[in-house]
Amino acid sequence: MEKYSKEKLRQAREKLKPYIHETPVLQSRLINEQAGCELFFKCENFQKAGAFKMRGAMHKVLSLTKEERAKGIATHSSGNFGQALALTAQILGIQATIVMPKDAPQVKKDAVAAYGAIIIESEPSPQSREETLAEFIKKSQATECHPYNDTQVILGNSTATQELLELHHVDDIIAPLGGGGLLSGTALAAKYFSSNTQVYGAEPVGADDAFRSIRDGKIYPSIKPNTIADGLRTALGTETFAVIQKEVKDILLVDDEDILKAMKLIWERMKIIVEPSSAITLAAVFKNPELFKGRKVGLILSGGNVDLNGYFKSIL
Amino acid sequence: MEKYSKEKLRQAREKLKPYIHETPVLQSRLINEQAGCELFFKCENFQKAGAFKMRGAMHKVLSLTKEERAKGIATHSSGNFGQALALTAQILGIQATIVMPKDAPQVKKDAVAAYGAIIIESEPSPQSREETLAEFIKKSQATECHPYNDTQVILGNSTATQELLELHHVDDIIAPLGGGGLLSGTALAAKYFSSNTQVYGAEPVGADDAFRSIRDGKIYPSIKPNTIADGLRTALGTETFAVIQKEVKDILLVDDEDILKAMKLIWERMKIIVEPSSAITLAAVFKNPELFKGRKVGLILSGGNVDLNGYFKSIL
Repeated sequence: MEKYSKEKLRQAREKLKPYIHETPVLQSRLINEQAGCELFFKCENFQKAGAFKMRGAMHKVLSLTKEERAKGIATHSSGNFGQALALTAQILGIQATIVMPKDAPQVKKDAVAAYGAIIIESEPSPQSREETLAEFIKKSQATECHPYNDTQVILGNSTATQELLELHHVDDIIAPLGGGGLLSGTALAAKYFSSNTQVYGAEPVGADDAFRSIRDGKIYPSIKPNTIADGLRTALGTETFAVIQKEVKDILLVDDEDILKAMKLIWERMKIIVEPSSAITLAAVFKNPELFKGRKVGLILSGGNVDLNGYFKSIL
Repeated sequence: MEKYSKEKLRQAREKLKPYIHETPVLQSRLINEQAGCELFFKCENFQKAGAFKMRGAMHKVLSLTKEERAKGIATHSSGNFGQALALTAQILGIQATIVMPKDAPQVKKDAVAAYGAIIIESEPSPQSREETLAEFIKKSQATECHPYNDTQVILGNSTATQELLELHHVDDIIAPLGGGGLLSGTALAAKYFSSNTQVYGAEPVGADDAFRSIRDGKIYPSIKPNTIADGLRTALGTETFAVIQKEVKDILLVDDEDILKAMKLIWERMKIIVEPSSAITLAAVFKNPELFKGRKVGLILSGGNVDLNGYFKSIL
């Protein structure tokens, strides 16, 4: 049986409908003029828990049996996926456990705790995070949910682009690229629900492991990534690598300065809050004006979770 | 003939339709829980030029004759109304002239200039601004547009609340209160398009001239206002004073710290950018929990024009 099919993607969307927001698609006349093409911003910053991660997390958990759900779910995450899984568990009335590094920002721990999840602290190293999670899984028999390298998660992620394509035909779609879960879902949705739509990944120059992995045909780890786009620092998994290799047209690299310029433009002109990992898609358009000139381009704004404490302290 | 009537408000809405955005009404489950009531955020931060001012400015200029329009329009403003009038003129193909104090932030001058308006600089004092404008009007015979103390502007402003009430019945509406133009339009729309909806103004403690004016039955000037809500530092005019005295239930005072807390909550949870003058409406709800408990409350978010340069410099 095929791992992915039009029918499976369609079913994922049906299953998710009662649990997630169908987020709006926004446009900006002024940004279109500056970009020289027509842009369609798919606003996953308005998704529950503030990011697209809710789609994959919820779809994963909905795929579990009653018995599995009763034993709980667990992941290690210091970012949006931990929050999404915690909220998913809260909505479905089951227990989530999130392994977070000791040094994770308090604001992130608070968000996870506010959704009723249990937090287990690990040392900051990736090894410690994985060992701590493995130990907990062994003891509790909870189901481990990987943030992106998982068929059910990718199917869930595909629903954002399914919604976009139902409203607008676009020539191109750009999705942010970190572990590849969002880009994989985006590419599969374009493959099955559109004809002739090219899909691109946008990756930070300072975390270009996926670009090199696709170029060289083998997965590189993400070693000392250096980018403000904190959602895009992870490496590809086997599953996302395979999908991206087959279904994605190209990977566009963008540096942090251009990400921040694009982010500022979106905040100022569209009056919406997006995180750097979202703004990279617009930055990729400005970086490649010839590629997108005159075309209709969908941009997946992955989320809007930014730490605003510093800003508000400075103006109080 | 009555100055305001249901028919006149309805006509204002029809007239404006081709020129303005019908802005969305958003809700937040989490903020509702915190507030203990059901809130409906009317998002004028998504309006053209980033604020409700576009409605009043456009309606004013649409009420002018061809001959008047040919001579141009002018105002003095360092804020949102200047931008709105400049964009109005650009859309209608006429000339706008904006008197701005020498020391106005460059970002505001740039915004006005970007819409093709002519800027005349004055000294920072209110007297100099008025004299400079009067001199220009005399010379050019352009029509002076007052930012709020004007029937046509108030009729234009009423359309935001007309849109809100068409979608949702609310028990209360809170609008920010500076010069009173938005609050006047809000109160008139509630009077003619709803039954039994109470309208409140929200005013900063550090600029409480309108509160005192209504209490004592005479207009006080706004002397040395001290608030972060830069849109709410002006005094009432004769026209807005009369409407507010008759149609508004009460004026709620809020201090700057509470305004900023509410603003942070909106940014973080709703992922939208609103200015302090907008957030004051939510702050007024938190300040008066008993008054709004269990009710449906409309909040007019007046705009989203915030200077983000400092924030982006700090994270670059």
